[in-house]
Amino acid sequence: MKAEIIAIGTELLLGQITNSNATYISSQSASAGIFVYHHTAVGDNKDRLEKVIQIAEDRSDLLIFTGGLGPTKDDLTKETIAKHLGTPLVLDKMALENIKDWFTKMNREMTPNNEKQALILEGSYVLKNDYGMAPGMVYEKAGKTYVLLPGPPNEMKPMVDNYLIPYLLSKRSDGSVLTSRVLKFYGIGEADLEHQLQDIIDEQSNPTVAPLAGDGEVTLRLTAFGENSSVNKKLLDEMESTIAKRVGAFIYGYDQETLWSSLLNKLRHKNLTLAVAESFTAGLFQSTFAAEAGASSVLKGGVVCYDKSVKTKLLKLDEETLESNGVYSEWCARELALSVRRLLNTSIGISFTGVAGPGAHANVDPGTIFMGIAWGEEEVETVKLSLVGSREAIRNRAVKWMADHLRKKVEQLK
Amino acid sequence: MKAEIIAIGTELLLGQITNSNATYISSQSASAGIFVYHHTAVGDNKDRLEKVIQIAEDRSDLLIFTGGLGPTKDDLTKETIAKHLGTPLVLDKMALENIKDWFTKMNREMTPNNEKQALILEGSYVLKNDYGMAPGMVYEKAGKTYVLLPGPPNEMKPMVDNYLIPYLLSKRSDGSVLTSRVLKFYGIGEADLEHQLQDIIDEQSNPTVAPLAGDGEVTLRLTAFGENSSVNKKLLDEMESTIAKRVGAFIYGYDQETLWSSLLNKLRHKNLTLAVAESFTAGLFQSTFAAEAGASSVLKGGVVCYDKSVKTKLLKLDEETLESNGVYSEWCARELALSVRRLLNTSIGISFTGVAGPGAHANVDPGTIFMGIAWGEEEVETVKLSLVGSREAIRNRAVKWMADHLRKKVEQLK
Repeated sequence: MKAEIIAIGTELLLGQITNSNATYISSQSASAGIFVYHHTAVGDNKDRLEKVIQIAEDRSDLLIFTGGLGPTKDDLTKETIAKHLGTPLVLDKMALENIKDWFTKMNREMTPNNEKQALILEGSYVLKNDYGMAPGMVYEKAGKTYVLLPGPPNEMKPMVDNYLIPYLLSKRSDGSVLTSRVLKFYGIGEADLEHQLQDIIDEQSNPTVAPLAGDGEVTLRLTAFGENSSVNKKLLDEMESTIAKRVGAFIYGYDQETLWSSLLNKLRHKNLTLAVAESFTAGLFQSTFAAEAGASSVLKGGVVCYDKSVKTKLLKLDEETLESNGVYSEWCARELALSVRRLLNTSIGISFTGVAGPGAHANVDPGTIFMGIAWGEEEVETVKLSLVGSREAIRNRAVKWMADHLRKKVEQLK
Repeated sequence: MKAEIIAIGTELLLGQITNSNATYISSQSASAGIFVYHHTAVGDNKDRLEKVIQIAEDRSDLLIFTGGLGPTKDDLTKETIAKHLGTPLVLDKMALENIKDWFTKMNREMTPNNEKQALILEGSYVLKNDYGMAPGMVYEKAGKTYVLLPGPPNEMKPMVDNYLIPYLLSKRSDGSVLTSRVLKFYGIGEADLEHQLQDIIDEQSNPTVAPLAGDGEVTLRLTAFGENSSVNKKLLDEMESTIAKRVGAFIYGYDQETLWSSLLNKLRHKNLTLAVAESFTAGLFQSTFAAEAGASSVLKGGVVCYDKSVKTKLLKLDEETLESNGVYSEWCARELALSVRRLLNTSIGISFTGVAGPGAHANVDPGTIFMGIAWGEEEVETVKLSLVGSREAIRNRAVKWMADHLRKKVEQLK
């Protein structure tokens, strides 16, 4: 069953809003074993919408429309589909009641144009709108299934989860179930990963293996189809171990896990606390880490030592030695990590110093960065990296590199 | 000129990522007077992509492709378009050099499949990739224009702004010149702004007026078409002053300016330096500010006092008074701002304390935040806000609120 999602709204084409409805409907469909092959977005225009419907009918079996079910003049999805299919629109009493209730709750007078929202394609299965007025519907004709959903995400999402997906699953012919697992990688490029897994990817069938790059990370989505989820789990486990044999060192987690949640859990599990001294990253490591709920159990805080004076006065680095080594040095990274650990009395102290760019500073190229990790007074690591990219990319890569490095180190601790 | 945006990537159809590229390209095109009538997303599949190209050629003049220019087997956009148009792919020396440089800088081995990224449609105009390996290109044939852009937003966006839009503008057939001006607002919602400018927006023709909401900010894009840029400037000035009469108080800048660059310039201009104490924002203010090149001339740094012990030990707040007032108090905000200003010896010290959520803490609701601004030992402001939204939204709104507040205050200084 080939599905297509058709979003209607001129604001999408003006770039005023993003078509996140297509994302949501796609992921919910995929996990129900329904495959979406096309997304289309078109404006509030009858003629263009009708052409889009014709194209979709030629290539898809399930057409999922979202948007244009409202009361205003430019809401014309229902009318256009009805005209195209030669199916009359009829008033749905339940939907009308729902709309009237809605106005009562809001203590507002129901204007006539709102009745329009209670019209449905004659013979369609109504999808109740628990969070708004316009009902959704499923209509079948000539082997095609037409699904109409409202545009507002807070109305559309629960309608999909609670009514549409169960309805579609009940209609499925084969009993097969779909199970999906996402492997998260860090420290390996998409090309390199795929190069190492080429034969697996070429021969994939069940489970399917799909790489996806983004923001310095790569993920691999494994999707298995079988008669039940335990059969699927076995298929996924086998595939995962085959992959892990080759590139397991770069796998840091699964599904919704991030480098940061993984790091937080590992530090928490070992009862370790963290203090951070940030120069060119200026708090980016700490603020990204603190975006994880519960970070406060691990991160005590730190110092943003953007200016040299903060390094010497607050973090007490020796001025002369700092002069001779320079702020862009392993010595500086080492001292910052030690100092912030001491000051905040934590298990671990880490530090970032370097040039984010744009342009060189003190004859040091942008992307030249030094990091320190102090595990104790005597136990300090320093790392020098040469990163490329924009100022933003360099800062982001630095903190991600550290998150991954810490994660691995903490895992290895006795 | 009818434009269509075609995004290629199975991950879009699985709902793993959102097609925000279409949003960005649409809004940038609109501001250049190029109108997008369709968005299409299709998977990494030659046959389906070729059919999508045929459909787009039937209804559009400008086909903008994004995604599928990478090194892997499932990156097949270029190959499919080349085959469809019967245009050979040739190696672009500059692009290949760029790719080699990239690997050298990353100290990574260049795998053979990366050379593929340097192939371009013969006779196409190359769009340089300043933030990645795969070049973009513009190719014209039989009255249709084909634009190929990389998929990663951090590569695609600057390519669109710096190379594609200027190229397309230079190609405009009619002699008219287009001049665009973006007004940046903070502190007013999109609905409220539109309500106050309804008549202007309804009657707009030249200049056009397009509101665009995003991330707690609203922008208004004014676009004038005329015989030359000075004619356009006059049209834009008139429209701007009409708008400013009603909502000028909320305008903070123009075009590429951000709250942060505006704040940086104003502080720099008055030779003021800044120190920051951050509890629940955990460095977010500093790291966001430091994303602006040149921030180091103003931001000396600060302290992330996530844990109470950092507030008392490093920032020297009196333990007993802190106990009695609590960390979520105007007193705490005031003392943090004063203390960090003293410690770092800056003109201004600011502070953030409060509950980001999720969930209440110490019986204080999430979104309850306190901020301090110390202009001197005696001159301290404190602010209490009750914000709503997710943990992330609350942290972002708090730092933006402060950026806007400081900006306005600094502007008023003698």
